[in-house]
Amino acid sequence: MLFIPTNFILDVDGVLSTGRFFYSSEGKILKEFGPHDSDGLKLIQDDLNISFVTADERGFEISEKRVVYDMGYSLELVKEKDRLDFFVANYDLETTIYMADGYHDALILEACYFGIAPNNARVEAKRMADFVTPSNAGEGAVLDACLYIKETFFD
Amino acid sequence: MLFIPTNFILDVDGVLSTGRFFYSSEGKILKEFGPHDSDGLKLIQDDLNISFVTADERGFEISEKRVVYDMGYSLELVKEKDRLDFFVANYDLETTIYMADGYHDALILEACYFGIAPNNARVEAKRMADFVTPSNAGEGAVLDACLYIKETFFD
Amino acid sequence: MLFIPTNFILDVDGVLSTGRFFYSSEGKILKEFGPHDSDGLKLIQDDLNISFVTADERGFEISEKRVVYDMGYSLELVKEKDRLDFFVANYDLETTIYMADGYHDALILEACYFGIAPNNARVEAKRMADFVTPSNAGEGAVLDACLYIKETFFD
Amino acid sequence: MLFIPTNFILDVDGVLSTGRFFYSSEGKILKEFGPHDSDGLKLIQDDLNISFVTADERGFEISEKRVVYDMGYSLELVKEKDRLDFFVANYDLETTIYMADGYHDALILEACYFGIAPNNARVEAKRMADFVTPSNAGEGAVLDACLYIKETFFD
Repeated sequence: MLFIPTNFILDVDGVLSTGRFFYSSEGKILKEFGPHDSDGLKLIQDDLNISFVTADERGFEISEKRVVYDMGYSLELVKEKDRLDFFVANYDLETTIYMADGYHDALILEACYFGIAPNNARVEAKRMADFVTPSNAGEGAVLDACLYIKETFFD
Repeated sequence: MLFIPTNFILDVDGVLSTGRFFYSSEGKILKEFGPHDSDGLKLIQDDLNISFVTADERGFEISEKRVVYDMGYSLELVKEKDRLDFFVANYDLETTIYMADGYHDALILEACYFGIAPNNARVEAKRMADFVTPSNAGEGAVLDACLYIKETFFD
Repeated sequence: MLFIPTNFILDVDGVLSTGRFFYSSEGKILKEFGPHDSDGLKLIQDDLNISFVTADERGFEISEKRVVYDMGYSLELVKEKDRLDFFVANYDLETTIYMADGYHDALILEACYFGIAPNNARVEAKRMADFVTPSNAGEGAVLDACLYIKETFFD
Repeated sequence: MLFIPTNFILDVDGVLSTGRFFYSSEGKILKEFGPHDSDGLKLIQDDLNISFVTADERGFEISEKRVVYDMGYSLELVKEKDRLDFFVANYDLETTIYMADGYHDALILEACYFGIAPNNARVEAKRMADFVTPSNAGEGAVLDACLYIKETFFD
């Protein structure tokens, strides 16, 4: 029997965002996002729990504005070194899909039920992913992931 | 006899803009545009009616500033799910050219007289387009479309 | 005998800048530039007269800040339709090198002594250019052009 | 016997940043950075001394905010023409790794113990580099360099 995923957890930077950020002399003040991805999340939001994690403390308010206030999903600030413990404590990894792009995400992508990496993720993350999206982050990678999840697990 | 198009309707984000947008902690504050496209629209603005649609409510004032106040074209806020009905109610689809890039645009691109997609549009939109521009959105895709329209329908 | 160029005239947007610009709800507020190009201009500024032209009225103050106040070169606002006349009236085309990227620049690139286009210029401009730089605009295209000019005409 | 490097000196613009910067009518106000690189520097910061140099006087406060105040590394403003002298006066070149991307960096990359260039560095710099990273600047080039240094000199 095919397991049915119950959680879809996404990293913010380099997954929902392009990963690029902008500094003025005041600090990190802008993050860059792209089209298509909010269309994707709406396609599967009735099928499983969608939530976001980020390790970016300095840009947290920017991510929070985009993810929580404007898109309506939850967002947790979890450092990379604490992330696997956080996942184990809060989610059933056996039914969790994780989408991430970083060097330290490789282990978590392997530990989760199903791992997804954007096309331009770090090679270390892509090696451990079960699915690499055809699009880059911020160019539709999250929509790619949502379409894949819909077709594979919920059709 | 070849039908002569009377309307050219363009999506804003991912067609006239690159699709990329920028968040500060205050929200969506910037959109990115590129060169060449206003040159293109001027080449055909005496040949047919040019107007824009957008589903982006949060960034509407930015799009409005660019499209309406600075370029002088009309712009309507129409959600993706209402877009086909809006087109049917307001335009003769048989003489309408539509240029768009999104997942939900595929059906409308098929329903219109002629559909155009930028080179980096979603694959679902490109499959239904009659013409895919050689350039990406924000890198001359709209000029490509205007040159194609001029040569194909008005020369 | 080889003619020696006396003027190097450059377009700003899509040549010195990447061509990308950013709108807030207040209008065009940012332009994007890249590395390497000011290194290039310094290499040849003792060999010929360097000046810039732009057709961008709305972004003129941004271009002026970059080109005139920060880099120290002259900048003229000249609409595309008036540009060839302006060049004829103000420069000896027989000794002028022009670098540009747009649809309407093709004729001027042909009319000048030597025409240069960035790698990602419009195809219409590239066809009329005598040299197409290996780099894209804002990624070193102007340094490429300066090194080519130095080696070809002044070594 | 293999020499052990003691210094890792990095250029800021086009190495840690993407090299792209943004002008308003007030001047250079933003620089663009990307993901992965601070993960990389943390991997080797106990192995050698990490410091940054920049020739960008106008954008110095932006670089300083990112490199010094937010990432915790030192940053020196050194013009390209003075850079080799500055290195000779302040570092033992025989144990120094230098990572840079510009036309004038080629000589210094050659003079140092080991030279690294991002994939999209100027060709003049890449020719003199001992290692060219698979990633572009601002897309993980610094993480690539750190992983290479860790594996080659400290494993």
